[in-house]
Amino acid sequence: MMLTSTTPRSTRTTDPTTDPLTFGVGVRVTAAVMADDYAAILTRALADLDTTGLVVDTGDVSTYVGGAEADLLRHLTDLAQALAATEHHVTLTVHLSRGCPGEVACDLPGGAGPRAGDVPSPRTTGRWAAAEWALYPLADQGTSGVEPDHMRDIYAAIDHARELGTFRGSEHFVTRLEGDVGDVLATAVAGWVLVGRRVQHVTSHLTLSLNSPSHAAVTR
Amino acid sequence: MMLTSTTPRSTRTTDPTTDPLTFGVGVRVTAAVMADDYAAILTRALADLDTTGLVVDTGDVSTYVGGAEADLLRHLTDLAQALAATEHHVTLTVHLSRGCPGEVACDLPGGAGPRAGDVPSPRTTGRWAAAEWALYPLADQGTSGVEPDHMRDIYAAIDHARELGTFRGSEHFVTRLEGDVGDVLATAVAGWVLVGRRVQHVTSHLTLSLNSPSHAAVTR
Repeated sequence: MMLTSTTPRSTRTTDPTTDPLTFGVGVRVTAAVMADDYAAILTRALADLDTTGLVVDTGDVSTYVGGAEADLLRHLTDLAQALAATEHHVTLTVHLSRGCPGEVACDLPGGAGPRAGDVPSPRTTGRWAAAEWALYPLADQGTSGVEPDHMRDIYAAIDHARELGTFRGSEHFVTRLEGDVGDVLATAVAGWVLVGRRVQHVTSHLTLSLNSPSHAAVTR
Repeated sequence: MMLTSTTPRSTRTTDPTTDPLTFGVGVRVTAAVMADDYAAILTRALADLDTTGLVVDTGDVSTYVGGAEADLLRHLTDLAQALAATEHHVTLTVHLSRGCPGEVACDLPGGAGPRAGDVPSPRTTGRWAAAEWALYPLADQGTSGVEPDHMRDIYAAIDHARELGTFRGSEHFVTRLEGDVGDVLATAVAGWVLVGRRVQHVTSHLTLSLNSPSHAAVTR
């Protein structure tokens, strides 16, 4: 890590889109377990999660996880499956981001360009989820790549959701997804990666409901 | 309501920015109560909430609430205060939107222009919250008003958070807010209204943590 402090970012010659952490590829996750002993349940569920290739920083509101897209999807799928396996009602709030690392301001304020990449494949978990999804291509000063157009990009991502079989319809402000939680998470990650091929700074928010009593008729 | 079906939107002469529901002003909220009897606790907490002036549609992932900005903030503050008063650990996921009503596509696809309005005042609740906040001015085809610039608008909103005393710092992808939950919610609503004076389509996501055991040292 000392290399970073002796080699200022501005003098580097490498493409900032190639390294996921330099490009700010990551997710914030909040897991809420509807149980009196939620802390113990959460600790047990998270104990065996594979964090290979990922940077993890746990906070009181959410946990930040940084790394490449395929590693993030693997981790999110493992997490959701472990939480679903507790059989408790759980909500999972997922906030994906790419192209704007740093704090208030982006360390890559436009000019870096979009990051190309493959769409990671879903892993089937046998666990069902309902979710609400929003996807945001963002216009920052000095944006490079194709200019963002929220609706144009939403349509492309929804077409992909239809192919994955998770698209269920549109609600106010969100797209409703249903299905195996591995497919639902893969839908959100795929839309975010697909739009991210053309636009530098893209975020996506997904709220998932697992083991809801109101899902019993659908899933059992 | 019959007037709507006999008077198609396209033939109306009124400004679509003046009516909050026509302009798509609303919020989706997910409340998660960390308790075995979460359903009963939630039902009791929500029973006496004032929904004057609001349209409410409860779903299995979130509840949609539509209406004017001041009514939305009043309702969110009442809701958060009632949930905090249960003394259970609660997370609240809040997704504000304006300027893009309808389903997948906006019914106002640009051209409507931004909606002017006053910043609603906070109501102090005596209940403390930590929160993570993101704010998104969105570029849609045919956008009118000032073109979105995510970073320019974020700075203006953060200045306002500093004035309200809720700004605590910047994390990956989000701004951390702390304080009375009435002030924290008012900060997010204010940023969204302020940016919304210049940009038609603006969304904001806020995740709040109430009664967390890890907050005991801060708040008691």
